[in-house]
Amino acid sequence: MQTSVKKRVVGVDIGTIRTTLAIVDVRGNVIAHQQFATADYPEIGGYIDKLTEAIIELSEANGGYDTIRSVGISAPSGVFLSGCIENSPNLPWKGVIPLAAMLRDRLGVAVALGNDAHNTALGEKMYGAAHGMKNFIVLNLGVGLGSCFFSEGHEHQGAFGYAGEFGHTCFEENGRPCPCGLRGCLETYVASAGIAQTARELLAESTAPSKMRGVEHLDSKMITQFCDEGDELAIEVYRRTGQIFGRALATYATLVNPEAIIVTGGVSQAGEWLLKPTRESFEKHIFRNMVGKVRIMLSDLHNAERDVLGASALAWEVPEYSLFK
Amino acid sequence: MQTSVKKRVVGVDIGTIRTTLAIVDVRGNVIAHQQFATADYPEIGGYIDKLTEAIIELSEANGGYDTIRSVGISAPSGVFLSGCIENSPNLPWKGVIPLAAMLRDRLGVAVALGNDAHNTALGEKMYGAAHGMKNFIVLNLGVGLGSCFFSEGHEHQGAFGYAGEFGHTCFEENGRPCPCGLRGCLETYVASAGIAQTARELLAESTAPSKMRGVEHLDSKMITQFCDEGDELAIEVYRRTGQIFGRALATYATLVNPEAIIVTGGVSQAGEWLLKPTRESFEKHIFRNMVGKVRIMLSDLHNAERDVLGASALAWEVPEYSLFK
Repeated sequence: MQTSVKKRVVGVDIGTIRTTLAIVDVRGNVIAHQQFATADYPEIGGYIDKLTEAIIELSEANGGYDTIRSVGISAPSGVFLSGCIENSPNLPWKGVIPLAAMLRDRLGVAVALGNDAHNTALGEKMYGAAHGMKNFIVLNLGVGLGSCFFSEGHEHQGAFGYAGEFGHTCFEENGRPCPCGLRGCLETYVASAGIAQTARELLAESTAPSKMRGVEHLDSKMITQFCDEGDELAIEVYRRTGQIFGRALATYATLVNPEAIIVTGGVSQAGEWLLKPTRESFEKHIFRNMVGKVRIMLSDLHNAERDVLGASALAWEVPEYSLFK
Repeated sequence: MQTSVKKRVVGVDIGTIRTTLAIVDVRGNVIAHQQFATADYPEIGGYIDKLTEAIIELSEANGGYDTIRSVGISAPSGVFLSGCIENSPNLPWKGVIPLAAMLRDRLGVAVALGNDAHNTALGEKMYGAAHGMKNFIVLNLGVGLGSCFFSEGHEHQGAFGYAGEFGHTCFEENGRPCPCGLRGCLETYVASAGIAQTARELLAESTAPSKMRGVEHLDSKMITQFCDEGDELAIEVYRRTGQIFGRALATYATLVNPEAIIVTGGVSQAGEWLLKPTRESFEKHIFRNMVGKVRIMLSDLHNAERDVLGASALAWEVPEYSLFK
């Protein structure tokens, strides 16, 4: 019988390109990490072999495998309740993959699996800006716009586990087309491709000089760079984006009444260029009782660690599994 | 020491005009009820005297006061966490009234207090259409548009208890003015005054004959009546309202992912005239994974009983209080 408490977990972030794994202690320190190419393993059997081996090797080299309590996995189309990756359009393995159960059988420790946006929120609650909060929203603003909110201290999953699809709420009737098939989805305005489109529209509308003119693959990172250099049109791109984002966030907050909204993801690196106009628009549109009471803030977790920290946070959500001990 | 379980509660619904109280058993049967005029008691002391007396009289005449487990109260501006009515603009008593504590001291049983929209949702969960559901939205569509949603089986209150202010989400930038001070709030389009305004706009736009023409104080009830009589313009009023309502509900559901949306309140009596176009618009705008999976339905509780049943449901949320026994 095992009598001591194990204080380390493994967080695994499965991305389309890379799989990252890390050993994390109970305070959120990343003790060691490692990466391998997801696409090198087109068969799920081979992928599980590789992942099992990587977890055992990394932990044996860093304090021993028997210090590991459990494993948490973030995956696109990951569903916590089933422990499966369900019909991911972006990963190499098709259909429903019972990854949590398969990995648990190999490793002999508890394994939990969930989707990225929800695990990001768990990570912010356990180690980041949302520590100690009970009602908050975490946004992942990058290529798309995912989100998750907590209700009285627990993650809100919704009836089928689909809650938080903020990027696919309708911002404008018959607006910009979205890859999801609808028109006017919020993410076609405020996520990366939408910001680039707004920039192109602004350049066409205006004759003002701008460093954005003639740039072939304009992206939100470049636009932020131009803002830092004082480019007025680039600043206007984020001003327009923030007006839309703030109004949509006000709707979200009027329904959910969070104490804070934490913005993560690639586009959040625009920082105050985006957040300042977002807050102004938010305060103009929020339910009057909440004016001045909801903080809109950036994550304070390190970008490179956020994803594995979220996955490791999920590892604590399952009981320690001592059947094999 | 009291050893038997008490299986009856009192539900109290405090309205601006009337206070209604009812004795309700554990299965939601209303055993007896009574009303008195709220405005007859402009001082809170006198009101508490009257309410205490009414509760004791009604229960003594119906099985005895010692069968009553606890009391639940619904009040506008009622806050569950504090047990107070906080700065109600519509009730005669100003400031913060610790009504739950005051009444508990008189009655010697547990007293809980909460706001109407939240208690309506509790009532639907305990006795109505939401029985057995864990994630659902209850709407109260009448003079305004309040709401409450449940997350994994519990009521979501939000950080300050303000969650669910659906009527004050921005439907249209710089749209119709709302008494709350904002413009374009959803309730200025879909609650009773908004529906009447849409009717007036339609009458002005069109030259078609309609029974609505020349009616002085057109309201949603009359418009429903005209729909039943086949009036095309009246039907168009609910069609436009439903298009807006369905789109806004799709945003709510995309964030919360409920299994059902239950519509209560005066305007819900328009029934399918409103719900059919609402569902059509909802399915057009909802996040694609949820298409066809969220029921939009009417409450099956009796209108006259819904409010006291909601209040009585709240009475079960507090532990039985046996300090005085």
